[in-house]
Amino acid sequence: MPKLIKQRSKKAGLAPGTLVHIGEKKTQELKITIMDYDDAHFQEKGIKAIEECFLFKDIPTVTWINIDGLHQVEIIEKLGECYGLHPLVLEDILNTDQRPKMEDYGEYLYIVLRMLNYNDKSSEIESEQVSLILGSNFVISFQEPEGDVFDPIRERIRNGKGRIRKMGADYLTYALLDAIVDNYFIILEKLGEKIEFLEEELVTRPTSETLQTIHYLKREMIFLRKAVWPLREVIGGLERGEPPLVKGTTRIYLRDVYDHTIQVIDTIETFRDMVSGMLDIYLSSVSNRLNVVMRVLTIIATIFMPLTFIAGIYGMNFKYMPELEWRWGYPVIWFVLVFIGGSMLIYFKRKKWL
Amino acid sequence: MPKLIKQRSKKAGLAPGTLVHIGEKKTQELKITIMDYDDAHFQEKGIKAIEECFLFKDIPTVTWINIDGLHQVEIIEKLGECYGLHPLVLEDILNTDQRPKMEDYGEYLYIVLRMLNYNDKSSEIESEQVSLILGSNFVISFQEPEGDVFDPIRERIRNGKGRIRKMGADYLTYALLDAIVDNYFIILEKLGEKIEFLEEELVTRPTSETLQTIHYLKREMIFLRKAVWPLREVIGGLERGEPPLVKGTTRIYLRDVYDHTIQVIDTIETFRDMVSGMLDIYLSSVSNRLNVVMRVLTIIATIFMPLTFIAGIYGMNFKYMPELEWRWGYPVIWFVLVFIGGSMLIYFKRKKWL
Amino acid sequence: MPKLIKQRSKKAGLAPGTLVHIGEKKTQELKITIMDYDDAHFQEKGIKAIEECFLFKDIPTVTWINIDGLHQVEIIEKLGECYGLHPLVLEDILNTDQRPKMEDYGEYLYIVLRMLNYNDKSSEIESEQVSLILGSNFVISFQEPEGDVFDPIRERIRNGKGRIRKMGADYLTYALLDAIVDNYFIILEKLGEKIEFLEEELVTRPTSETLQTIHYLKREMIFLRKAVWPLREVIGGLERGEPPLVKGTTRIYLRDVYDHTIQVIDTIETFRDMVSGMLDIYLSSVSNRLNVVMRVLTIIATIFMPLTFIAGIYGMNFKYMPELEWRWGYPVIWFVLVFIGGSMLIYFKRKKWL
Amino acid sequence: MPKLIKQRSKKAGLAPGTLVHIGEKKTQELKITIMDYDDAHFQEKGIKAIEECFLFKDIPTVTWINIDGLHQVEIIEKLGECYGLHPLVLEDILNTDQRPKMEDYGEYLYIVLRMLNYNDKSSEIESEQVSLILGSNFVISFQEPEGDVFDPIRERIRNGKGRIRKMGADYLTYALLDAIVDNYFIILEKLGEKIEFLEEELVTRPTSETLQTIHYLKREMIFLRKAVWPLREVIGGLERGEPPLVKGTTRIYLRDVYDHTIQVIDTIETFRDMVSGMLDIYLSSVSNRLNVVMRVLTIIATIFMPLTFIAGIYGMNFKYMPELEWRWGYPVIWFVLVFIGGSMLIYFKRKKWL
Amino acid sequence: MPKLIKQRSKKAGLAPGTLVHIGEKKTQELKITIMDYDDAHFQEKGIKAIEECFLFKDIPTVTWINIDGLHQVEIIEKLGECYGLHPLVLEDILNTDQRPKMEDYGEYLYIVLRMLNYNDKSSEIESEQVSLILGSNFVISFQEPEGDVFDPIRERIRNGKGRIRKMGADYLTYALLDAIVDNYFIILEKLGEKIEFLEEELVTRPTSETLQTIHYLKREMIFLRKAVWPLREVIGGLERGEPPLVKGTTRIYLRDVYDHTIQVIDTIETFRDMVSGMLDIYLSSVSNRLNVVMRVLTIIATIFMPLTFIAGIYGMNFKYMPELEWRWGYPVIWFVLVFIGGSMLIYFKRKKWL
Repeated sequence: MPKLIKQRSKKAGLAPGTLVHIGEKKTQELKITIMDYDDAHFQEKGIKAIEECFLFKDIPTVTWINIDGLHQVEIIEKLGECYGLHPLVLEDILNTDQRPKMEDYGEYLYIVLRMLNYNDKSSEIESEQVSLILGSNFVISFQEPEGDVFDPIRERIRNGKGRIRKMGADYLTYALLDAIVDNYFIILEKLGEKIEFLEEELVTRPTSETLQTIHYLKREMIFLRKAVWPLREVIGGLERGEPPLVKGTTRIYLRDVYDHTIQVIDTIETFRDMVSGMLDIYLSSVSNRLNVVMRVLTIIATIFMPLTFIAGIYGMNFKYMPELEWRWGYPVIWFVLVFIGGSMLIYFKRKKWL
Repeated sequence: MPKLIKQRSKKAGLAPGTLVHIGEKKTQELKITIMDYDDAHFQEKGIKAIEECFLFKDIPTVTWINIDGLHQVEIIEKLGECYGLHPLVLEDILNTDQRPKMEDYGEYLYIVLRMLNYNDKSSEIESEQVSLILGSNFVISFQEPEGDVFDPIRERIRNGKGRIRKMGADYLTYALLDAIVDNYFIILEKLGEKIEFLEEELVTRPTSETLQTIHYLKREMIFLRKAVWPLREVIGGLERGEPPLVKGTTRIYLRDVYDHTIQVIDTIETFRDMVSGMLDIYLSSVSNRLNVVMRVLTIIATIFMPLTFIAGIYGMNFKYMPELEWRWGYPVIWFVLVFIGGSMLIYFKRKKWL
Repeated sequence: MPKLIKQRSKKAGLAPGTLVHIGEKKTQELKITIMDYDDAHFQEKGIKAIEECFLFKDIPTVTWINIDGLHQVEIIEKLGECYGLHPLVLEDILNTDQRPKMEDYGEYLYIVLRMLNYNDKSSEIESEQVSLILGSNFVISFQEPEGDVFDPIRERIRNGKGRIRKMGADYLTYALLDAIVDNYFIILEKLGEKIEFLEEELVTRPTSETLQTIHYLKREMIFLRKAVWPLREVIGGLERGEPPLVKGTTRIYLRDVYDHTIQVIDTIETFRDMVSGMLDIYLSSVSNRLNVVMRVLTIIATIFMPLTFIAGIYGMNFKYMPELEWRWGYPVIWFVLVFIGGSMLIYFKRKKWL
Repeated sequence: MPKLIKQRSKKAGLAPGTLVHIGEKKTQELKITIMDYDDAHFQEKGIKAIEECFLFKDIPTVTWINIDGLHQVEIIEKLGECYGLHPLVLEDILNTDQRPKMEDYGEYLYIVLRMLNYNDKSSEIESEQVSLILGSNFVISFQEPEGDVFDPIRERIRNGKGRIRKMGADYLTYALLDAIVDNYFIILEKLGEKIEFLEEELVTRPTSETLQTIHYLKREMIFLRKAVWPLREVIGGLERGEPPLVKGTTRIYLRDVYDHTIQVIDTIETFRDMVSGMLDIYLSSVSNRLNVVMRVLTIIATIFMPLTFIAGIYGMNFKYMPELEWRWGYPVIWFVLVFIGGSMLIYFKRKKWL
Repeated sequence: MPKLIKQRSKKAGLAPGTLVHIGEKKTQELKITIMDYDDAHFQEKGIKAIEECFLFKDIPTVTWINIDGLHQVEIIEKLGECYGLHPLVLEDILNTDQRPKMEDYGEYLYIVLRMLNYNDKSSEIESEQVSLILGSNFVISFQEPEGDVFDPIRERIRNGKGRIRKMGADYLTYALLDAIVDNYFIILEKLGEKIEFLEEELVTRPTSETLQTIHYLKREMIFLRKAVWPLREVIGGLERGEPPLVKGTTRIYLRDVYDHTIQVIDTIETFRDMVSGMLDIYLSSVSNRLNVVMRVLTIIATIFMPLTFIAGIYGMNFKYMPELEWRWGYPVIWFVLVFIGGSMLIYFKRKKWL
C-alpha cells in the first residue's frame, strides 16, 4: 500500500526553486543514457559525467537523454543549467509527489505524469513519477528507479523500424506517453480480473475478508483515478498546443493517446460503479444471513418453549392433579407435544421460514 | 455477462498503427459485400478478393462496402491503403474495445460505435463494435460477426423506395446510425419489462434472488450507459460537422438521431434511478422481515418464560409448600397461567405487535 | 402507473419519416376544431374533412387548428403536406414518447411537451403529449385524447378579453405553454399535500405501506422530472429564438413562463430532497422499533432465566438437600426470587431500558 | 413549519397579468410610507391614498416608497400604472411564492427575494417575500407583513450619516439588499448553535427525538437553500448589470453583498454536510446500542441455559439415578454450576463482551 | 474544535464600511513591523505609532508592513486612509470570518486567505485569517495573533539570498502565499497519518470511539475544504491578473503555487473519499459483530432448548411412565442428550456457524 502522502514538510519555508529530492531513494546509482538519432544516423551510449550530455545540445539530430534516479541533486541542477530549465521545473522533477501536469515554458514543454506498474508478487500497484522535457530537438526523461516501459521504443529507434526515426522530438514524446498510457490497460486488466473474481466470491460465499478486499479495491481505484484523471487535461493540452514544439503530423497521434486516456478514465469509473455496487450487495447479504440466523432461533424457541412449558406443568407437585393418575396420561401428553410441535413446523413451512 | 475489459495487453509496446485484432474471433470467414447505387442504377455483389473493391473508388455513385469479421488483418490493411485510411484508424477498427467516437480526417470521417443486440436465449445484451468510414462518395462499415440491424436499409436501397437512393453517402451514414440507435429502444423495452416485473416481485415476495437481479440490472445499465453516453457527442459533432462531407439536408435527419440518443440516455438515467430506488426498498423490506421475526420471537418468549417459571416454582420439592396441598391448587394455577398468557396477548394486540 | 417505456420497437427498421402512431389509442374519433381571429373578427368551427383547414392557410388572421386524437395517420399526413411540415416532424407528432423539445425549421417552429393531469379517482398523474406548430400566422396543436387545459384560452379568444386577440400566433403559443405550465403547479400542490400527509404519518405511526408510498412518490417524481426538466431548455430557446416567428413583445411573456418552469423544477428538486430524507427517517424508525422489541425480549429473558434456574435447582431430586427440609425454605425462596427480579427491574429502569 | 407550496391553483387559467394575491394575508391594513431625500433635503411621511405617491415621480430626488401588505390588489395596480410597471411584474409582486430573481425591464429593474426572520418563540424560520423596483430616481419596496430589517437604513437616511444621502437610488437598493443578506447571518448563527447543541447531544445521549431534530434541521436547510441559492445569480447579475440604473461606484458595494451571499451559501453547504454526517452517526449509534442489547441477551442466555438444563437433569424422576443418592451430590452439583457459570463469565470478559 | 460560525450578528444593520472587529481577540497588543528593501538596501524596524509607516509610502523600494492583531480598529483605519484603502476592504480585514477571495481595486489588490496551523497539543487545526494588500511597491499583511509561517521569508530578505531582493512587491506577495500553501501540506501530512492509523485500527479492533474519530476527521475535512477550495480561484485569478501589479516574471511562480493548491485540494478529496469509505467499513463491521453475537445466541438456544425439554419430560410426575422404571433409563437418556447435542454441534460446524 503506497503512503498516503509524501514527506513534503522538509521543504516548507525554503525559497522557491530550492532543489530537494522528495520521495524514497529507489535506486543506488544515478544512470544516464543517451540516444541520438535522425533518419540516417543513430548513436546510443551510457554516460558517466553529466557534462557529456552538453555536446548534444546544439546538434540538429533528435537527442533523448534518459535519467534513472533523482537523488543526486547537483547533477540534475547542472543539466538544468545547460538546457536552460527554469528552477521551478527542476524543483518539480525532484519532488516526486506531483500531480500530472503540462507546462509550456516557450522554449520547451515540461510534462510530468505517473508510470504505474503492477507488482505481481505483492499484488500491488506501484507508482513512479516520470518527468519529460520536450525541446525543439531533444527530449529529457527523468525516472525514479531503473526499469520502465520504454524498451520497445528503444528497440524501434535502434532498428529504425516504423516512423520514429523519421520524425522529431515531439513524436518521441508521444511515443513515451503512449507507452505509459498503454501500460495502464495492463493495470486495468489485472483490476478487472480481481473484480470479476470478487464478484463471483460475493455470490457464492462472502466472508468478512471480502469486505476487506472491496475496501482495498476502492482505495486502489482512488489512487489510480488521482494518477490518470489529470492526464486527460495534460494530453488534451498537448494536442491543442502551440505549433513550434508539437507539429501537426504528431497531433493526430496525440489525439489517439488522448482517446486511450479517456478510455482508461471511463473504465476506472465503471469499476468504481461496480465496486460500490458490490458493497451494497455485501451489506445486504450480511443482513440476509442475520435474517436466516434469527429465523432459526425463532423457530427453535417457538417450538420448544411451549413444549417445555407443558412438560413443566406436569412436573408440578400438586397433590391433586388428576391427569397424573390417568393410565394413558403419559402417552396422551406425548401425543399432544408431537402434535403442537408438528403443527408449528407446518405453519413455518407455509410461511416459508423453513 | 460480457468481459469487463478486453485483453489489450498484447498490444502494449507495439508501434502505433501496428494492426492487431483485439477481441474474440466471432465469425469464421471474413465476408465483404458491396452495394453501389445512385438514383438510377443499383448494383449489389458479394466479393471474394478485396481488390475488387478498388474499382468502385473513383466512380461518382455511392458505394457501401460492408465487411463482416475483423480477424484477417491483411485484407483490412489493403483496403485501408486503397482508400487512404490513416494507420491509427485501421488500428482502432481492429481494436474492438473502442469508446464511441467520431474523428475528422479531412478526406473522410471515422465513426465508431456499438451495436447492441438482446439475446433472448441467454437474456443478455450482446455488444458489437461497428466502425463507419464516411468519404465523399463511399461508406465503409466494419462489423465483428455476421448479422446486423441494417437489413431494412439494404431493402430500401434495393427497392429504391424513400429518399435513400436520391441522396449521398452522408445520408446512408445517417441511415446506418439511425438503425443502430433505433435498435437501442428495443433493448430498453426489454430492460423496462424486466424492471416492471422486478418491481412487482419486490412488492409481493422479495427473495435473495431479487437482490441478485437488481445487481445484474445495475451492471447491465452501467454497460449500456458506457456504450450510449459518448454517442451523444459523436452524433452532435456529426450534426455540427463541416459541410463537404455532411450536407445541410442530411443535418436535419442527424438532429433526429441526436434526439433519439438523448432519449435513450434519458431513459437509461430513469432506469438507474428506479433500480437504485428498488435496492432501498429491498433493503428495508429485509429489515421489516427481520422485525417481524423478532416480534414473533419476543411474543413467544414473553408469554412462555413467565409461565414456565411458575410451573417451575410448583415443581420444587420443598417439604412445606402449602399450595401443593390445596384441593383446588392445580385448577387455580391453570387459571393463573391462562390469565397471564391471555392478558399478555391482549397487551401485544394493543401494541399492534400481533 | 404509466408504462415505463412505450412500444417503439414496431418502428425499428422503417425509413425515417414513415408515419406510425406509437402509443395507446386514447380516443375514438379524431376531432378537429378551428379558431380564426384577429382584433376585429372571430370565427370558430368544428371540422369534418381535413381539407377545410387548407382554406385558412393564406389568410392574414391568426388560425389555431386543434387536433384531438393521433391514430388517423393519413389525416395528419395531409395536413402536414398542406402546411409544408417536414416528415420527421409528423413522425415525432405521432410518436407519443417524445422528450420535450423545440426545433426550428425556419418556416415554423415545432414544440413538443407533456400536458399532465392529476386523476383524482386513481390518484395518479396522467401524461399526454402535446405538439405545437408555430407558423407566421397559424398555430397547430396536436393532442392525444380529448380534454385539455386550454378552455380558459378559448374563452378569452371568444370574448376578445385581454391582449390575446390583438397579438399574433406567437402570443397564442405562449398562452398555450403558459396554460400547460400553470397546470403543473396543481400537480405539485397535490404532491405537496401527499408529502405533508406522509410526513405526519411517518412521525406518528409508520407502517410498511408508508415505505410503499415513499417509493411510489419517488417514482412519480422521477417521471415528473423527466417531463419538466427539458422544458427549461425548450422555453429558454423560444425566448432567445430568432425574431421572425417570435416577436419582441411576446418575449417578455415567455420569460415569465420560463420563470415558472424553473420554479416547477426547483419545487420538484425540493420534493425529491424531502422524500429521500423521509426514506432515511423511515429506515431509522424501523431500526428503532427493532431496538424496542429487542429490549423487551432481553428484559424478559434476563429476569426470568435466573428465576427459572433457581426454581429448577429446588426441583432436583437429590436425597440430601437441606434447604428442602427447612420450615421456611419455600417463603425464603419466594423472597429471593422477588428480590432478584425486583433489583433487575430497577437496574433496567436506571439504564433507561424501560 | 412553512407550507411546502402555496395555493397557486386559483390562478390557473387566468390571463397573464391578472392580479391575484397568492399567499396568506399577513397584515390587516396596507401601509404606505415615503422617504424622499437628496444630499440636502429629507422628507418622510405615511400615506393614506396611493395617489399621493404620484407627486414624487418626476422629482429629481431619490424617493423610497415602502408598501407593507399585498392584499389590496387595486392599490398596487394603480401604483403600477403610474410608474409604468409591466402587468407581469405586478403579478409577480402579488404572487408570494416567487423564486428570487432579477429582471431588467429597461426603465427599471425588478428584484424579488426572501427576507428571513428567526422567530424565537416557535424556533422557526419565517419567510417573507420582498419585491424591489429600482428606477432611475426611485425605489419601491413591497413586503407582506409589517416589521422588517430596514430600520437601520431608515435611521441612516434620517440622520444623513454615511454615504447614503449623497448617493442615488441604486445605492439605496444595495443598502436594502445588504440589510436582508446580513440578516441571513443571524439565521445561520441560530442554526449553527442548534447544530452544535445537537452534536453534543448525539455523543452523550441520543434519543429518537434527536432523529426528529436532525430531520427538522435538514428540512430547514432545504428551504434556506432554496431561498438563498438563486440570490447569487440575482446579485451577480445586478453587479454586472448595465450602467444607466446601476452606477459604477455602487458596483463595488454590490460585489461586497455578492461575497456575503456566497459566504451564506457556503455556510449552508457546510451545515448540510454536517447534518448528514450526524445522521450517519445517529444510525450507527442505534446499531451500536442494538449490539449492546444483544450482547446482554446472549450472555444471559449462554450462562443460564446450560445451568437450567443441568438442574433439569437432576429433576428427572428416573428410579435409578445414582448421583441422587450420593451424600455430597447436591453440593457437588452447586460447585459444578458455579464453575460453569464462572468460566463463562471469564470467557466473555476475555472476548470484551462485558 | 473551532466555532461553526462567528458572531457576526453584532454587525447587522450597520452602514457598510463601518469598522468592527469580528472574531476573538487573539493577542494582547497590536504589533507593527516594517521591512523596506531593494536589491541594494535593506531596513527592518518595529513600529510604535502607525504614522511612521506613512513615510514609506512614496519610496520606490519595496515596503512590507506586517500587522499582528486586529482589535485596535482606529490604527487600521488610519493606515487605510494613508494608503487609500476602500472602507469595504478595511471592513473585510477586520471581519475574520471571510471566505478566501481576491479583489482588484485598480490601485491595489486585496487578498484574503486562511493560514492554518496544526496544534500538536490539542491535535486540532487552528485557523487564522491573513489579509494581504498588494500595491505597486508595497505589501501590507494583517494577521490575528502573533506567530506565522513567514519567518523563512524574512530571513531570505535579510540575507539577500535568492531572487527576493531583486524582485518587486508582487514577488513578495507570491512568497507569502507560497509559504501559507506550503504549510497546508504539513497539515495534510498530519491528517494522512491519522487516517492511516485509523485505518489500521479499523481492521484490527474497531470501537465506538473509532466512529467518533471518523466523524471528527470528516468535520475537519469539511473545514479544511472550505478554507482551501476558494483559494484555487484566488490564485488562478492572480496568475491571470492584469499586468501593472503582477509582472510576467512572477506569473510563472504563481502558476507553481496554483499547482500546489490544486494538489492540496486533490489530496483533501482523496482523504474525503477514504474517510467515507472507512465509515462504510465501520458500519459493516458493526453488522458483522452483531451477526457473530446472534450466531452464538442461536447455537446456545438451539442446543439447550431441546435438551432442557427432554429433561423436563422425565421430570413429569405421571404415575405410569415406563421409562422411569427401566434399569438403564438414566444412562440411555444421557446418551440421547449427548447425541442430540453432538449432532447439532456438527451441523453448525458444517454450516460454518462455529
